[in-house]
Amino acid sequence: MKCCYSAVVLVWPGSAPSTLTGKDEVSRHRTLQDGVWVTFKGGVYDITEFVAMHPGGDKIMLAAGGAVEPFWALYAVHNQDHVLEILSEYKVSVYLNISFDYARSLNPSDPFSSDPERHPVLRINNLKPFNAEPPPEILSESYITPNVFFFKRNHLPVPRIDPESYKLTVEIQGPNRERGGALSLSLDDLKNKFPKHTVTATIQCAGNRRSDMHKAKQVKGLNWGIGAIGNGTWSGAKLRDVLLAAGYSPDDANWARHVQFEGLDQDVAGTTYGASIPLRKAISEDGDCLLAYEMNGEELPLDHGFPIRVIVPGTVGARNVKWLGKIIVSDVESSSHWQQNDYKGFSPSTDWDTVDYKTAPAIQELPIQSAITVPADGAIVDRSDEEVTLKGYAWSGGGREVVRVDVSIDGGKTWKIAQLKSSDKEQTAGAMAPPPGQAWAWKLWELTVPLPADTEEMEVVCKAVDSSYNMQPDSILPIWNLRGVLSNAWHRVKVKIQEEQDDQ
Amino acid sequence: MKCCYSAVVLVWPGSAPSTLTGKDEVSRHRTLQDGVWVTFKGGVYDITEFVAMHPGGDKIMLAAGGAVEPFWALYAVHNQDHVLEILSEYKVSVYLNISFDYARSLNPSDPFSSDPERHPVLRINNLKPFNAEPPPEILSESYITPNVFFFKRNHLPVPRIDPESYKLTVEIQGPNRERGGALSLSLDDLKNKFPKHTVTATIQCAGNRRSDMHKAKQVKGLNWGIGAIGNGTWSGAKLRDVLLAAGYSPDDANWARHVQFEGLDQDVAGTTYGASIPLRKAISEDGDCLLAYEMNGEELPLDHGFPIRVIVPGTVGARNVKWLGKIIVSDVESSSHWQQNDYKGFSPSTDWDTVDYKTAPAIQELPIQSAITVPADGAIVDRSDEEVTLKGYAWSGGGREVVRVDVSIDGGKTWKIAQLKSSDKEQTAGAMAPPPGQAWAWKLWELTVPLPADTEEMEVVCKAVDSSYNMQPDSILPIWNLRGVLSNAWHRVKVKIQEEQDDQ
Repeated sequence: MKCCYSAVVLVWPGSAPSTLTGKDEVSRHRTLQDGVWVTFKGGVYDITEFVAMHPGGDKIMLAAGGAVEPFWALYAVHNQDHVLEILSEYKVSVYLNISFDYARSLNPSDPFSSDPERHPVLRINNLKPFNAEPPPEILSESYITPNVFFFKRNHLPVPRIDPESYKLTVEIQGPNRERGGALSLSLDDLKNKFPKHTVTATIQCAGNRRSDMHKAKQVKGLNWGIGAIGNGTWSGAKLRDVLLAAGYSPDDANWARHVQFEGLDQDVAGTTYGASIPLRKAISEDGDCLLAYEMNGEELPLDHGFPIRVIVPGTVGARNVKWLGKIIVSDVESSSHWQQNDYKGFSPSTDWDTVDYKTAPAIQELPIQSAITVPADGAIVDRSDEEVTLKGYAWSGGGREVVRVDVSIDGGKTWKIAQLKSSDKEQTAGAMAPPPGQAWAWKLWELTVPLPADTEEMEVVCKAVDSSYNMQPDSILPIWNLRGVLSNAWHRVKVKIQEEQDDQ
Repeated sequence: MKCCYSAVVLVWPGSAPSTLTGKDEVSRHRTLQDGVWVTFKGGVYDITEFVAMHPGGDKIMLAAGGAVEPFWALYAVHNQDHVLEILSEYKVSVYLNISFDYARSLNPSDPFSSDPERHPVLRINNLKPFNAEPPPEILSESYITPNVFFFKRNHLPVPRIDPESYKLTVEIQGPNRERGGALSLSLDDLKNKFPKHTVTATIQCAGNRRSDMHKAKQVKGLNWGIGAIGNGTWSGAKLRDVLLAAGYSPDDANWARHVQFEGLDQDVAGTTYGASIPLRKAISEDGDCLLAYEMNGEELPLDHGFPIRVIVPGTVGARNVKWLGKIIVSDVESSSHWQQNDYKGFSPSTDWDTVDYKTAPAIQELPIQSAITVPADGAIVDRSDEEVTLKGYAWSGGGREVVRVDVSIDGGKTWKIAQLKSSDKEQTAGAMAPPPGQAWAWKLWELTVPLPADTEEMEVVCKAVDSSYNMQPDSILPIWNLRGVLSNAWHRVKVKIQEEQDDQ
């Protein structure tokens, strides 16, 4: 396995020359006090003085300490010559795209030494294994979540896999697990021997919005905000096509029930990540399961499973196994911890003393979900603005389309209907719907409301409805569960209205 | 069309002889004051004095004014000689199985004159067209709901169809609706030319539990309690097989999107009932859609669509078209009122002035639902009983299995997990599950709890969870809609605990 960084560290053991600035130095400049630095292509720019002049307001601060490119990709207005001219005034040095802090961590005894670097805008919930989410306001900026902002949820160290020698094993266990023989596919095989399919699908972690549940009553798990979700366009071979190539036949449906996936990521004891999905989902023409090698038109990033990850549209993130090493058609579910014990929902009455993992099914399809991305909880709006635009996302598992999002600014007493957007276009409910059961992608929603005259605080609430007319539960405690998964009660944020200042 | 009753009326124009008692006379004896009469086979029995001695307590009153046979089918304990001996003591006359009130209604100008008769235990929400539901406690007595107790939801008069001359038309519209030609099938064809399939599926009216919603805020619609749901075993030809026989080919999936059904029931202007379902549901091997000619092993009853009704498992009752006359594979939905305007869900903010029917999709799969059948709201239990057994049902649309029912006796503060039952056997969640997406039948649930010491009133609440971990919303107002459909908030009943009487 190659590592391109370690050699550089040896050549550059001390601090970088003043005309070169490294990643760590840039990432330490994220406030007006410390200075606001960003990188663009090969340069480092100190934009501290420009922040106040930025037409887009505070949003520029999201890029502080890191690259501006992913943001400019979101806001096409920057693709103009005069923007580059303005930026060029602030150049302070040449950018050296390497982290020395990170380089120092390249300790062969650290199992996480092969982890890739990430954009500093991500909010880190856990460093090793790496778990991080974007700020919510980024999520609603584009229908497709850019790779760099897409939440990362790793259970184990990121493996570095040589694409040249990569092999995927596909095994169909006989009814007595005696069939033997397995198909072995290279990355080239997957790319060239099977038609390339592209699916736009939202992936959500079962723990998304766990922090809301944790606030209501303590749970065990990473304290995700509302950003453990993203919408991507995935390309790869259809899982169905690969199973058929491996010899799967309709007769196998008589004994087979599950398709298991094994990752190439492993812990120090050699235990690999694993999960399974129902056979029907895997083999169905309409299930749209992929062995993806591209994410949003780019090669699959290291954090997202390079070179191959499974995409199981409509299904909890945990079954979209990354760094895929093996597929097994079986009569039983994956025996992994993550299938058998974790990623299950329990009653609010179940605690760590009474939990019996066998009593609950593994989470597969997720329930209806929505959240408010803008404004943030605790935000302040000026009375003089007269109105405020509320934004968010809504999604449901199992290919069930979001058909309506209701938004309240009075804590849930009265409701208005939000505008739904998909493909960055406005959409009327019911129009241009995907086939029933194949609505894999979220909808972004937006609603502009006049500021209410009679209050200085608005409690904004959203709740979504899917095509099976499933609704989100009102409150959190009745759906509380000890692991804090499936946190999909109405989302609430409080917004203060600041009265106009006296001009004198 | 034959009518076997009218001739009898002519022979028996006056009141019946005293040794013969007609249906109307029996049905007027439903209380201890008026006397409690029941019928059994050819006899009428005055069991007023026996009611207090009945080992099953008050349940015997459910049969008052009607036939005991359907109840004895539920409670096998009655299949004993000494029970018949007891009953024989109370015989008062010979039973004439005809209603004179009803007979008088056989007015050729009344479009409902062909409606069949029904058991008096049904609670009538509307007489013409007939809409009625069983008392809730009957629902949880057997996993399969007997035909006579199964809720009746008719939109129009019941048509009397001669099975000999019955023809079902199956038409596949071409992409330009020019294909022409249609398959015509007799009842014999449907029974003999296609394999017979049997499916156990729950059917629920979209308006089930509307009365709960109406109580919270007025809605328009029949005031259904919790009994507009039932679980049946249906046998017939697979819709898929019939569509294939009519010439449907996979290529038709390029243009076809819906399968429309037209009933033979019609209003005075000749408008027939109609509805449609997504093509995928109709044609899928796993969709299990039937053209049913049997209900619970008997010929389809008149009220349930004789001779043929569509069974669309997991889908709202309104699409399970009865008295089926025509099937059309089409690129568009049914244009009927019931598909385009009615049976849609709207936001709580939508009223009759603002409703735009096009903005909401037609209800197909229903959301997760549950209700408490025993005890009834307002029931009184004795402190000396020390415990109380709570019963109910739970079901979800789209083939999503009910995986858990949580029950509270303190209004939702704390929860216990109910025992789930299917096939009248106890079942542990997760065990013996039907294939994912094919759990068409409800589960009955049961929980015995000690009477709480510190209160004289219990508020019993239930909420269910399906295999996609969809939960019921907590409260009604946020899901309120102007037609009162999709009423699936937590179900609540209040129960009083009566303190022990002083013995002195």
